[in-house]
Amino acid sequence: MKTIEFKSIGTIHSPFNDLEGMPIQPIGAKGIKGQINLKNEYKDGLKDLEGFSHIILIYHLHLSKGYKLEVKPFLDTEKRGIFATRAPKRPNPIGMSVVHLDKIEGSTIFISNVDIANGTPLLDIKPYIPHFDKEEGDEVCIGWFEDKYHEAVNKKSDNRYSDFE
Amino acid sequence: MKTIEFKSIGTIHSPFNDLEGMPIQPIGAKGIKGQINLKNEYKDGLKDLEGFSHIILIYHLHLSKGYKLEVKPFLDTEKRGIFATRAPKRPNPIGMSVVHLDKIEGSTIFISNVDIANGTPLLDIKPYIPHFDKEEGDEVCIGWFEDKYHEAVNKKSDNRYSDFE
Repeated sequence: MKTIEFKSIGTIHSPFNDLEGMPIQPIGAKGIKGQINLKNEYKDGLKDLEGFSHIILIYHLHLSKGYKLEVKPFLDTEKRGIFATRAPKRPNPIGMSVVHLDKIEGSTIFISNVDIANGTPLLDIKPYIPHFDKEEGDEVCIGWFEDKYHEAVNKKSDNRYSDFE
Repeated sequence: MKTIEFKSIGTIHSPFNDLEGMPIQPIGAKGIKGQINLKNEYKDGLKDLEGFSHIILIYHLHLSKGYKLEVKPFLDTEKRGIFATRAPKRPNPIGMSVVHLDKIEGSTIFISNVDIANGTPLLDIKPYIPHFDKEEGDEVCIGWFEDKYHEAVNKKSDNRYSDFE
């Protein structure tokens, strides 16, 4: 089958060299600092970005090997379909996080609320514009997360992540 | 440089065979129906997804050739850094849309609020859980979009898209 090829446009740095003990979502990573070293050739693409408080990072979950169609997420004791979770072992290991943009200096982007492993290859940056994604007042249902999501604030990854490498 | 390889996990179908006249964001695509034909081998990954009202689609902007670091977005008359826009000609042509999930039948996912070109290769589906992305009450600034975003509701793509192919 034809593959789709992308390239790393930079590297995300964070305090998380170890997959165990990582926050599992940005809301559990409040205040955690990181930085993006964008490749210099893409620097001009950062113009106007500093006006945004939050940015969407799309990245390669480079430590994830293989995938499972059903997984037991950190927040649950039952197996769920992989597409109904944010678990890393996906058919295409693509991660997405909304992080806080602190400042930009040259091709270095300083960020906080970082739930991403150190050394992660960055694929894309998009401005976070919640108004674009969903109409205000349009009701949101979040399935099996409904009575779990508040736990994401404090929950850290456990040894299920050893499965991750 | 090492490339990162992904594969299409299915195809997104929409009424938009023509790039001109497409809505430029999901909020401008209210009620527009589409469907995803997921490859049968990934069907088990859809378990539990139907409890979510909205899903995040990550896809290959397969009609986009090449990239520019500064672009004049549909909503603006000034050139902006590509990473401060959602324009398609990006260093990695990766698209992201939040769509409404209507129903799932086998490996077919029926969706609405679709702003995606017909035949687009799908890379990933993630549940839309806004509570994960940003703490409630955490203020959001949207830079140059601030006095433009309401226009996205009615604005359609114009001949700037001819540049897109």
